[in-house]
Amino acid sequence: MKQTAIILLHCPDRQGIITDITKFITDNRGNIVYLDQYVDTIEGRLFMRIEWDLDDFLIPREKIKEYVKTMFGERYEMDFNVFFSDVKPRMALFVSKMNHCIYDILARYKTGEWNVEIPCIISNHEDLRYVAEQFNIPYYVWSINKDHSNKEEVERAEMELMQKENISFIVLARYMQIISDDMIKAYPHHIINIHHSFLPAFIGARPYDQAYERGVKIIGATSHYVTAELDAGPIIEQDVVRITHKDTPESLKIKGRDLEKIVLSRAVTKHIERKILTYKNKTVIFS
Amino acid sequence: MKQTAIILLHCPDRQGIITDITKFITDNRGNIVYLDQYVDTIEGRLFMRIEWDLDDFLIPREKIKEYVKTMFGERYEMDFNVFFSDVKPRMALFVSKMNHCIYDILARYKTGEWNVEIPCIISNHEDLRYVAEQFNIPYYVWSINKDHSNKEEVERAEMELMQKENISFIVLARYMQIISDDMIKAYPHHIINIHHSFLPAFIGARPYDQAYERGVKIIGATSHYVTAELDAGPIIEQDVVRITHKDTPESLKIKGRDLEKIVLSRAVTKHIERKILTYKNKTVIFS
Amino acid sequence: MKQTAIILLHCPDRQGIITDITKFITDNRGNIVYLDQYVDTIEGRLFMRIEWDLDDFLIPREKIKEYVKTMFGERYEMDFNVFFSDVKPRMALFVSKMNHCIYDILARYKTGEWNVEIPCIISNHEDLRYVAEQFNIPYYVWSINKDHSNKEEVERAEMELMQKENISFIVLARYMQIISDDMIKAYPHHIINIHHSFLPAFIGARPYDQAYERGVKIIGATSHYVTAELDAGPIIEQDVVRITHKDTPESLKIKGRDLEKIVLSRAVTKHIERKILTYKNKTVIFS
Amino acid sequence: MKQTAIILLHCPDRQGIITDITKFITDNRGNIVYLDQYVDTIEGRLFMRIEWDLDDFLIPREKIKEYVKTMFGERYEMDFNVFFSDVKPRMALFVSKMNHCIYDILARYKTGEWNVEIPCIISNHEDLRYVAEQFNIPYYVWSINKDHSNKEEVERAEMELMQKENISFIVLARYMQIISDDMIKAYPHHIINIHHSFLPAFIGARPYDQAYERGVKIIGATSHYVTAELDAGPIIEQDVVRITHKDTPESLKIKGRDLEKIVLSRAVTKHIERKILTYKNKTVIFS
Repeated sequence: MKQTAIILLHCPDRQGIITDITKFITDNRGNIVYLDQYVDTIEGRLFMRIEWDLDDFLIPREKIKEYVKTMFGERYEMDFNVFFSDVKPRMALFVSKMNHCIYDILARYKTGEWNVEIPCIISNHEDLRYVAEQFNIPYYVWSINKDHSNKEEVERAEMELMQKENISFIVLARYMQIISDDMIKAYPHHIINIHHSFLPAFIGARPYDQAYERGVKIIGATSHYVTAELDAGPIIEQDVVRITHKDTPESLKIKGRDLEKIVLSRAVTKHIERKILTYKNKTVIFS
Repeated sequence: MKQTAIILLHCPDRQGIITDITKFITDNRGNIVYLDQYVDTIEGRLFMRIEWDLDDFLIPREKIKEYVKTMFGERYEMDFNVFFSDVKPRMALFVSKMNHCIYDILARYKTGEWNVEIPCIISNHEDLRYVAEQFNIPYYVWSINKDHSNKEEVERAEMELMQKENISFIVLARYMQIISDDMIKAYPHHIINIHHSFLPAFIGARPYDQAYERGVKIIGATSHYVTAELDAGPIIEQDVVRITHKDTPESLKIKGRDLEKIVLSRAVTKHIERKILTYKNKTVIFS
Repeated sequence: MKQTAIILLHCPDRQGIITDITKFITDNRGNIVYLDQYVDTIEGRLFMRIEWDLDDFLIPREKIKEYVKTMFGERYEMDFNVFFSDVKPRMALFVSKMNHCIYDILARYKTGEWNVEIPCIISNHEDLRYVAEQFNIPYYVWSINKDHSNKEEVERAEMELMQKENISFIVLARYMQIISDDMIKAYPHHIINIHHSFLPAFIGARPYDQAYERGVKIIGATSHYVTAELDAGPIIEQDVVRITHKDTPESLKIKGRDLEKIVLSRAVTKHIERKILTYKNKTVIFS
Repeated sequence: MKQTAIILLHCPDRQGIITDITKFITDNRGNIVYLDQYVDTIEGRLFMRIEWDLDDFLIPREKIKEYVKTMFGERYEMDFNVFFSDVKPRMALFVSKMNHCIYDILARYKTGEWNVEIPCIISNHEDLRYVAEQFNIPYYVWSINKDHSNKEEVERAEMELMQKENISFIVLARYMQIISDDMIKAYPHHIINIHHSFLPAFIGARPYDQAYERGVKIIGATSHYVTAELDAGPIIEQDVVRITHKDTPESLKIKGRDLEKIVLSRAVTKHIERKILTYKNKTVIFS
């Protein structure tokens, strides 16, 4: 595996940006291995992902971010980030009692399907400790009181752990707890949730029961970044499955589990591959 | 084409109903050509569709309904209807300015794909008269004032026409007007609407703009029976199509049109085939 | 969980069968909890699944099969089977080197999603022993020579083990070996395979490479019962996912893995629930 | 509507091509309104679509092709074409007896959904003349003998008409006749066919009957460019719909019709928008 650098950027669309950036990379002997860009003509905004081989690149990797900022950042009012393929993102996995998402994620992790580290699993229940043990990953339990009186304290402990573990993003794998604003602010657009409905339908609790009540003919699952407003963050991925009048709330839950785990894992894949940009509560997903 | 009779029924689930009804038909020399039933175990309710050949049937067709009522109706607290395959349902088609649904419907009509009559097309605009003329179907325009001051009067005229034309059900092919309670009561669960979203997401006006704003990754269309509450009637059929961040409100409208016409036509097909039962604001759809 | 009995049957369609069987059960104080039937009018054949509560049933369970045979079997030329909900089917899981299907299956098994026992995992490679160990399931390896010279011997050993373990059906979770006729005959329509294409397209080896070469816009996966002819047995379940010109053989393999595991698990679910009938190389799948 | 020029090109991938072409356009005061490119890293080939406003463009439109050829064509071994938004492609529509595709196409045409002219409809049967008359489009019938003895003569007449009408591409809307090599050579990758199966499954005649026989759980439709080998040309678009054991060959045909018309129209849309490039019997489809 070659070492590569990745720039994810967006900025007001102006002539010459793509030319300038590709020229900057090739002039410095970087071999571009991925280039995709998208111009949102309604917002007048350019979104871009570029990745290049660092082997012969003349600029030292620790200087790249500074160079990009100096040469393009301010000039183009650019919002950008630089990543390196050999720096694995570090995921904290939050779970509760259901095991389908955690199994799907850990199976991929174990296989090496993802370029990621998962140093810790965090839960408010002991229920899934056995899964963590199967995969030899530390499992931490902080129980949240029914009256939420210790929630602040629990989140503080979780955030300390995550800081210690140098966590770069959080995956809520059917965690079933609302995340406080403090934690959301600490990981802006870096907390991925799976909601078990086709958002914005059936926001909040018990979406399968809501779907059953409404008599829909299709159910869905939605993976999104967590923001302060419940189930209203930027959508990363959705998928659906057809149901019939024969389905019960129970059978919807079973059918939904397969949707949830696949939709969540697709979203996590895109995040790990640094192929998501967010802007104005929406996502641009590079292929 | 053989003449057949169809019973659509639902009632509290009790042992022996299916046996009783099939025995009644076969004892009277009816050859059953279709039998499907579904027991909703949560509601404790049986839903059934049975169709049989009238050729050698001993009971005169005009007496069948009475016999069913006498023999089973009260005993089983049965909600039922009898239809005959040679009595074509008569559809009133309501349109406004967009032509994709009307074309899809009239093409099927012209081909003879549906066992239906369409004696009239009703609109509040002249825009689609040319389509009606292409297919030689009378086109009636009653313009509704912006302040809706003449709405009651217009609906009265429309209902007179429909009575005269012996209309049995109404299809709103992107009609874009809210139907008043009077008309809904006159055609209970016999007005089929197409809503251009995946209900219950994006109820009301401009769903594609709402979908664009929310940044969903999939859009849908929903066909449902019209009830007093807006976009909240029993859902007959839904379908979806995947979109991306590259889609604009305009491209959503174009992609949505194909969804809308197909979803509406599937719902109309099921209605014409007498394969829909409604109960507690949901539908049972026989295959 | 109540104890229930299930009859799966098919026979030439004649009036009275459903009545006779439901009467037989209710007359003997069986409470029917599931009844679904389908008449294939082209084949003139009735397919039926009926399940009832054994609590107050008058006929001893060990006599049920004999009674059904005597009363209906010959009279209606019926092909039937009787199952009991408390007799768990016993699955032998065959794997090779890829872990996505085995993880998906064992996660469901561990959760108790399926009414099944998995007493052994069989492979021709050591690669997935770690997965079996994670889930504490015996893992047996019989290596097949490249020239297949010991294949007969290996299959004999496998069949001995399966006999000892009282295996009732086999799941090939990307096993990648052709099963010999002897084993197929020993488990007729009881070996479930997952083929990584939308059959009958891309039969045989390397279907993702074939799909890439052909330039299809959608790929699929197919779960089917194994018969003597390669990839030609009765199809249980299929699903697809959209791809684009940007996909490589490698990305097809990754996208395909999620399809494969879900499609295989759906098929296994239906088999375990005794909801599949096969007839003339096709399946009837009850819902 | 502004006048724009479009270049569709592919060539061996080399650094600087995108920069060179965008610079050429912007240096000559062309305002780029669309730019999408894709590098096939397996083939080492760049595919690109660029569109710009002609309003202030300094190079006269009749010279653009020559300039592109001189400046880039040979240097980059480029395969390219230049189109102008105000030059509408002219479609010849070939039909036989089924009307669902022709209605779908003419409805879009009438609505102005497509930037296209349809000066003639060609058939080997009189059956659909009434549709052509509904839309006021000349309908030509050349009957092909059962022994195909006059096929060459018929195709010659058709090609004369198409030459006279300045036809740029052909749409076979369930035409049901094999096109001869001469006509294929005259319109290379400019004849769009709809095949009523999920290719490469069920090539040739009666695919719905084949699908029924095989017992598949999903059927599809495929739109592709016609090449000398039957049903083997570059695939433009495919879609599928789920079926069950309850479907008959007849119901598959009905379900398939909706698939066919939508899949064909999507392919025609992409062709008209000049968003398809073909290379090595595959398509690159720009969004």
